[in-house]
Amino acid sequence: MPDATTDAALRTFVEVPADSHFPIQNLPYGVFAPYHGAAPRVGVAIGEQVLDLSVLEEKRLFEDRRLRAQRPFSHASLNPFMAMGREVWRAARQTISYLLRHDTPTLRDDEALRREAFHPISAVRLLLPVEIGDYTDFYSSKEHATNVGTMFRGAENALQPNWLHLPVGYHGRASSVIVSGEAVRRPCGQVKPDDGPPRYAASRLLDFELEMGFFVGPGNPLGEPIAIGDTEKHIFGLVLVNDWSARDIQKWEYVPLGPFLGKSFATTISPWVVPLDALDPFRLAGPAQDPEPLSYLRGIAPCAYNVHLEVGLQTPQLEAPHVICRSNLRNLYWSMCQQLAHHTVNGCNMRPGDLLASGTISGPTEDSYGSLLELTWRGTKPLTLPSGEQRKFIEDGDRVVMTGWAEGDGYRIGFGEAAAEVLPAHCDS
Amino acid sequence: MPDATTDAALRTFVEVPADSHFPIQNLPYGVFAPYHGAAPRVGVAIGEQVLDLSVLEEKRLFEDRRLRAQRPFSHASLNPFMAMGREVWRAARQTISYLLRHDTPTLRDDEALRREAFHPISAVRLLLPVEIGDYTDFYSSKEHATNVGTMFRGAENALQPNWLHLPVGYHGRASSVIVSGEAVRRPCGQVKPDDGPPRYAASRLLDFELEMGFFVGPGNPLGEPIAIGDTEKHIFGLVLVNDWSARDIQKWEYVPLGPFLGKSFATTISPWVVPLDALDPFRLAGPAQDPEPLSYLRGIAPCAYNVHLEVGLQTPQLEAPHVICRSNLRNLYWSMCQQLAHHTVNGCNMRPGDLLASGTISGPTEDSYGSLLELTWRGTKPLTLPSGEQRKFIEDGDRVVMTGWAEGDGYRIGFGEAAAEVLPAHCDS
Repeated sequence: MPDATTDAALRTFVEVPADSHFPIQNLPYGVFAPYHGAAPRVGVAIGEQVLDLSVLEEKRLFEDRRLRAQRPFSHASLNPFMAMGREVWRAARQTISYLLRHDTPTLRDDEALRREAFHPISAVRLLLPVEIGDYTDFYSSKEHATNVGTMFRGAENALQPNWLHLPVGYHGRASSVIVSGEAVRRPCGQVKPDDGPPRYAASRLLDFELEMGFFVGPGNPLGEPIAIGDTEKHIFGLVLVNDWSARDIQKWEYVPLGPFLGKSFATTISPWVVPLDALDPFRLAGPAQDPEPLSYLRGIAPCAYNVHLEVGLQTPQLEAPHVICRSNLRNLYWSMCQQLAHHTVNGCNMRPGDLLASGTISGPTEDSYGSLLELTWRGTKPLTLPSGEQRKFIEDGDRVVMTGWAEGDGYRIGFGEAAAEVLPAHCDS
Repeated sequence: MPDATTDAALRTFVEVPADSHFPIQNLPYGVFAPYHGAAPRVGVAIGEQVLDLSVLEEKRLFEDRRLRAQRPFSHASLNPFMAMGREVWRAARQTISYLLRHDTPTLRDDEALRREAFHPISAVRLLLPVEIGDYTDFYSSKEHATNVGTMFRGAENALQPNWLHLPVGYHGRASSVIVSGEAVRRPCGQVKPDDGPPRYAASRLLDFELEMGFFVGPGNPLGEPIAIGDTEKHIFGLVLVNDWSARDIQKWEYVPLGPFLGKSFATTISPWVVPLDALDPFRLAGPAQDPEPLSYLRGIAPCAYNVHLEVGLQTPQLEAPHVICRSNLRNLYWSMCQQLAHHTVNGCNMRPGDLLASGTISGPTEDSYGSLLELTWRGTKPLTLPSGEQRKFIEDGDRVVMTGWAEGDGYRIGFGEAAAEVLPAHCDS
């Protein structure tokens, strides 16, 4: 249900540019170091500033007794806060929203406190916001699964028999999840040319995958599934995810146990975690599901969200990213709620900070495909960029910039960016 | 190379039964709570006792300055110690070995200190010894891969084309790794009968997989592979692993992204981590590899180990586990060193405490198969137990007990047990 923190009429005393991703209705959480050597702490983005929540904690501006006792924002990750549950998340959000309102004097009229609590985002170091225990990647866009299946098995056998019955997913690698801005090294590994034996080489078919992911909190004990009706209580917030993929390494390794080194060299996420509560005005019903899913995957409130997504590609010859994909989170066939219910149906335990990503979010049109594999149809239809350059896959020095936002009435709930440049492989010299 | 800590002639003042897994040549690390409510700390097993290393730390009995400064044993996990590297691991091991010798008076002659530092293993609570960041499971026994491939694809296509070229593996679930003694709840999930639509049910084809795993430390930064010649520096020690598997859930879900909920309900490990150094006398060359692996997987000292392994099955009608499988770690085609080199060849970073498991360790004979799937050949050849009961797969109330040891000259380097009982599924009532 809507609450005051998402009211379109809300105003803040902080300057917020018209196209900002971070109006007062958003208040995404991140972890940052205000200066070199400073202890990382939790902040929220507002306009072009970050508000240091550890300062608000120190000044005892949170009224909720659990927040006062545990001080979750004086930590180097969001995990302690994620563990506290939606009631506490809402209490924190209401206090932060209240303190940022144009008519609340606490911060507005206290210049010394403002100087202590606010930093320009451009001046701080944004860190990976979460200690990710486990990272799971789903495969929940029907268009993406159909595209990939068509390429590799033909249109008649595009979807595997299980695909329409359950949200297919796999365990990913948590250690190599990195935050936007960190460069990605092109991976080396074993690849198998069609006409010869396998060899050790740099990946030549480096790709991005446009995804979103959600962080779990508080989670469930081992052996006790999260019922579909309870799943929302355990979704803290969302980030952009670039699930970098080395298609040639993946192709040779993945039968029968799935993607492994073709994925585990890097996964880029955006630094700001947008609370699920901020997205509530953008909630809608997902696509009709036929066949009807089994009951453990049914019977909940709408769990899809209208979030516009874009991928920009910037080559060394381009001065800015050129948008090569426009998609939408609502394109997902399987919802986050269904993903979480399915993931735990066997008793698998979720811990605060676990990351569940969507899989590539492709839409129905060719410009909405969320990977180069699909956009160039395995490299058979290269993209031509404004510089005249062509791309089948990612080349060294290219920068991939993902962004996304929910479009409100006069404001945007934005996700910032998940961006990274690709460096040459070590084995390429 | 051998060092004094593995000398067969070493003796300790602690009583060690003749068939003990924990003579002075072993000194495996675990994490325990000496009494209810006590802070967990690190200990080593010696005979039927656990030696509390945090007490040795407090008394400043470690001479190594890094150990004195960081006090890694006063922690609830082995991760800080694993991060310190082999040189420190050896310094710690040498001090502990020295303090336990029959001719070292420090502990032997100080009754008060002994009372503080020693506890009967049977009286303490053994905990999961490591905070596992990422858990990877390989598929490195040729016999196992051949058996499974033969069952599902026929003898001619048993091994996939990649299998002889690289150690196939996949990302597992870290959150559901549990320590020996914790019961395992039979999972519910989606299964697909051959003659009908998928349905929600308790798994009926519950199985164990006999594996071993090694813990990583210190690991590598993202983007910087561990060369095959350096892999041993990053192998801290080994445990027994039971990679519980729900064959029916797995069969329906695993194409194309690999095992997921068929595995992530539980993975049992033994509580004692046997240092790689303790296994040095049992090192041997692995099987010949044909075709010759690519160079990044070649050119190291022998990296196989002669460790006898057993699986016992105890039904409610049996008074003790009945041994149904005898195998050996040396049966692995791909070595731990090759697994680690391959896992990082793409730049994937390993962190202290990451767990890399072998995959099911099956040998060449029918009684050496490491899973019921193979032992009963998909249930077509049920096992008959001494009680007259038959088993195709695991039933509720059954207890699976894995054990293993390296047989030295008059002593055993043992792994203790990885044991767990199976509880009825929640959805079965």
